[in-house]
Amino acid sequence: MDPISQLADLFQRFPGIGPRQAKRFVYFLLRQNGGYIRELTHGMQELQSRIARCAGCRRYFTNAHNAAAQECAICGDSARDSALLMVVEKDVDIEAIEKSGSFNGRYFVLGGTISVLEKEPEKRIAANELFRAISERAQHSALKEIILALSLNEGGETTAAWLRSQLAPLVREHALTISSLGRGLSTGLELEYSDVDTIQNALHSRVQDSETHHRE
Amino acid sequence: MDPISQLADLFQRFPGIGPRQAKRFVYFLLRQNGGYIRELTHGMQELQSRIARCAGCRRYFTNAHNAAAQECAICGDSARDSALLMVVEKDVDIEAIEKSGSFNGRYFVLGGTISVLEKEPEKRIAANELFRAISERAQHSALKEIILALSLNEGGETTAAWLRSQLAPLVREHALTISSLGRGLSTGLELEYSDVDTIQNALHSRVQDSETHHRE
Amino acid sequence: MDPISQLADLFQRFPGIGPRQAKRFVYFLLRQNGGYIRELTHGMQELQSRIARCAGCRRYFTNAHNAAAQECAICGDSARDSALLMVVEKDVDIEAIEKSGSFNGRYFVLGGTISVLEKEPEKRIAANELFRAISERAQHSALKEIILALSLNEGGETTAAWLRSQLAPLVREHALTISSLGRGLSTGLELEYSDVDTIQNALHSRVQDSETHHRE
Amino acid sequence: MDPISQLADLFQRFPGIGPRQAKRFVYFLLRQNGGYIRELTHGMQELQSRIARCAGCRRYFTNAHNAAAQECAICGDSARDSALLMVVEKDVDIEAIEKSGSFNGRYFVLGGTISVLEKEPEKRIAANELFRAISERAQHSALKEIILALSLNEGGETTAAWLRSQLAPLVREHALTISSLGRGLSTGLELEYSDVDTIQNALHSRVQDSETHHRE
Repeated sequence: MDPISQLADLFQRFPGIGPRQAKRFVYFLLRQNGGYIRELTHGMQELQSRIARCAGCRRYFTNAHNAAAQECAICGDSARDSALLMVVEKDVDIEAIEKSGSFNGRYFVLGGTISVLEKEPEKRIAANELFRAISERAQHSALKEIILALSLNEGGETTAAWLRSQLAPLVREHALTISSLGRGLSTGLELEYSDVDTIQNALHSRVQDSETHHRE
Repeated sequence: MDPISQLADLFQRFPGIGPRQAKRFVYFLLRQNGGYIRELTHGMQELQSRIARCAGCRRYFTNAHNAAAQECAICGDSARDSALLMVVEKDVDIEAIEKSGSFNGRYFVLGGTISVLEKEPEKRIAANELFRAISERAQHSALKEIILALSLNEGGETTAAWLRSQLAPLVREHALTISSLGRGLSTGLELEYSDVDTIQNALHSRVQDSETHHRE
Repeated sequence: MDPISQLADLFQRFPGIGPRQAKRFVYFLLRQNGGYIRELTHGMQELQSRIARCAGCRRYFTNAHNAAAQECAICGDSARDSALLMVVEKDVDIEAIEKSGSFNGRYFVLGGTISVLEKEPEKRIAANELFRAISERAQHSALKEIILALSLNEGGETTAAWLRSQLAPLVREHALTISSLGRGLSTGLELEYSDVDTIQNALHSRVQDSETHHRE
Repeated sequence: MDPISQLADLFQRFPGIGPRQAKRFVYFLLRQNGGYIRELTHGMQELQSRIARCAGCRRYFTNAHNAAAQECAICGDSARDSALLMVVEKDVDIEAIEKSGSFNGRYFVLGGTISVLEKEPEKRIAANELFRAISERAQHSALKEIILALSLNEGGETTAAWLRSQLAPLVREHALTISSLGRGLSTGLELEYSDVDTIQNALHSRVQDSETHHRE
C-alpha cells in the first residue's frame, strides 16, 4: 500500500474520523512544510516520554520537573481537601470542574463507563483501582465523601448504580458518604423540553434570592 | 391568487413552517376526504368558542361545563397552595411542571420573554397583569414566594432580571421571596460539555445518598 | 378530550408534524384573531369546492372560470407539444419544471413512487390511468416520447424500472420512445462527493463552450 | 505549555478539527501503545521522503521504484489520450474520476479554487503552471480539449469563469476547445428540490432508452 493510504488508515483509528476525513488529513500534511510535521512527530514522541499516568488519580500529567514524580499537581497539593474524592469518567471532566473553581477536593478518573450488559466491569473501568484507593484513603487519610460525578446518560447512570452496590461494604465499614451532582436546569435548557426528573430536582433545589428583603 | 397558493400562504404563518412545507400541507389536504377537513375546520372553530383565557393565570383552558367560568381548573382548585406563585413563559411549561407532579402552587403565564433591547416590555409580556396579580394576592391571600421558572437562555434570563428589578418594591412592601429553579446537570448532559455555572450549581446542590449508612 | 388536544391530534396527521409542533400550532391559533382563523377555514373549504383533479394529467387545478371544466390550463393549451409526455411523481414537480421554462410538452402525475416490495403498484400510483392515457394519445394524437422524470433515488428508480417493463408492449405497438432526464453534476455538488454514475454521465454529456474559437 | 496542550494545538490545525476534538485526539494517543504511535510518526516521515508532486499534473504520488521519477503513473502512461486535459481542484477528485472508469485523458490539479474577490489568483491556485502546461502540450503534443471539471458551487464557478477568460488567447492560438462536465440530476436528487439550471440541463441532455424498439 502506498504511504498516503497507509497513513490515512492510521488516522481512521482516531476518534470520530472516517475514511474521507482521514484522507483529507494526509493531503493537508502533504501541503505543510517539514517544520510542522517535525513538530507533530516530536509532540507525539513527547507524549510517550513526558506524560505519565498519576498514581493517585489516574489522570495523565506532565512529568515536568522530576522524572521520578508519580503524582500529578492536584494529588501532590497538600492544600486540597482529602475528605472529598470526586469520581469522574475522563481527564477532560477534571478540566471542566477545575475551570468552575468550585471544588477543592481530590479526583479519581474511572477511564470510562459501563453498560448494563457489561460482564466484566473491572476490565472496562478502573474499578478495582478505585476500591483500593478508597480503602487506603479511608484508613490513612480523612476521606469522608465520595462524589460520583458521572454523566446523566445511560452509561453514567449504569456506572453510578454499579459503583454504589460495589462500594456498599466500604461505605459501611468506613462510615463514608456517597453523593452525586445536583440535578436541575442546565444553561440553555428550556422548561418545555425538560424531563420529569430534571423538573423535580430543579423545583426541589430552587434558590431564593439572597437580596430579597423581608418586612421588619 | 388560486386557492392552493392562498391556503399555502396562510399555513406559512404557522410557527416553523416555510413555503415548501406550507405547500405540502395543502397537497396533503387535497388528498384527504371531506370528513377530515370538516373535523379540522370544526376543531378550529371550537378553539374560538370553547377555549378561554383564564382570568387567574392567563393560560388557555376549556370552558367545558360552565360558559360563565373565568378560571381554569388549577386556579379554581382551593386545595392548591396560594403561598407559591410560579411564573412561566408559556402554557406548555405548565403541562411539563404538572407532569412532574412536584408542584402544588399557583401559576402565571407571561406569554413570552423579552430581549435586552426591548423598549416596551409590558407590550411583549403580561408584566402589568403579573404585577397586579401579585399585588392583589399579597393583600388578599397568603402569597409568600414568587418562583421565576424561566428558561436558562438569554431571553429567559433577561426577563428574569427585568422582573426582579420591577418587582423589588412589591417584594419589599409585602415581604415576599423571589426564587428561581435550581440549576444543575440535566438529564442527558455530559460533564465535559457543562458550563461553569452549571457545574458550580451541580456541586453546590450535590445530593447525598439517603441510604448511605454511617457506622454506629 | 379537550379542544386543544383534539385539534393537536388532527394537526399531527400533517406531513412531518410531531406532537410537539402540533400543539404549538394550536397555541399559535389561540393567539390569532378571529379573522385569520376564518380565512384558514374558508381556505380549506375552498380547496374542496374549487380545486379539481385534471382529467388529463391528474394534477390539482383551480376550476376558476367554468365549473364544468375538467382539464387544467396546461392540458387545455393547444399550443403545447402533444408528442411529449412527461411523467412526474407529484404536482410540485410540474411547478419546478414549468419554472425552468424548458419544457413545452404534456404532463402526467403518478401520485407517488413504488418500492421494490410493492405487491400492487397499481394501487399506490396511477399506473393504469397512465397506461390508458398513453394508449389513447398514441392512437388519437401525436404522442412520440414518454419522458420518465422521476427522482434519482430508490423509489424513483424502482418506479421507472417497473414502468419501463409494463410499458414495453405499448411502446412496441405504437413505436414510442422512452427517455429519462439527463444525469450529471447538480448545482452545488462537489466532484469529490459524486458517485460513479453521476461522473460517468457528467463526462459523457460534457458541454463544449460555444464561444470557443477554432483556428481557421 | 505542557505536551498535551502543545500537541492538541498542532492537531487543531488539521482541517475540520476544533479544540475539543484536538484534545480528544491527544487522549486517544495517550491510551495507545507505543507501536501505533511509532507507525504514525513513521507514516508522516514517509510522506515527506517518499511522496513527490508530479511534474506533469501536480498531484502527489508515491515515488516508489525510482527515486528520480518526476511523473506519476497516469502522466507516465503513454496509452492515455494526450488530446484531453482535465483540470480538477484537488487530488481526491482524480481518484473519484478514475474510479468511474470513464476518462482516459490527462489531468491537472489546480490545488483549490478562487473567490470573486481574489486579488492574486495565481498565488492561490496553480494557474501559471496550468497556462505553461497547456502552452507546451499544445505545441508539442496533441492537446485538443481542456475539460474544466470544477465543483458546481461558487468557488468552482468563479474559478472556471476566470480560467476561461485567462485561457482565451491560448485557446485561440492553438485552436483548443474548452468544455465542462454535463449538468443534470445527480444520484439521490429529487426533482422538487432541483434548481432551474439543473432542470434545464437535465431536460436538454435527456437520454432515450437504447432498448426502445420502433415499429417496423
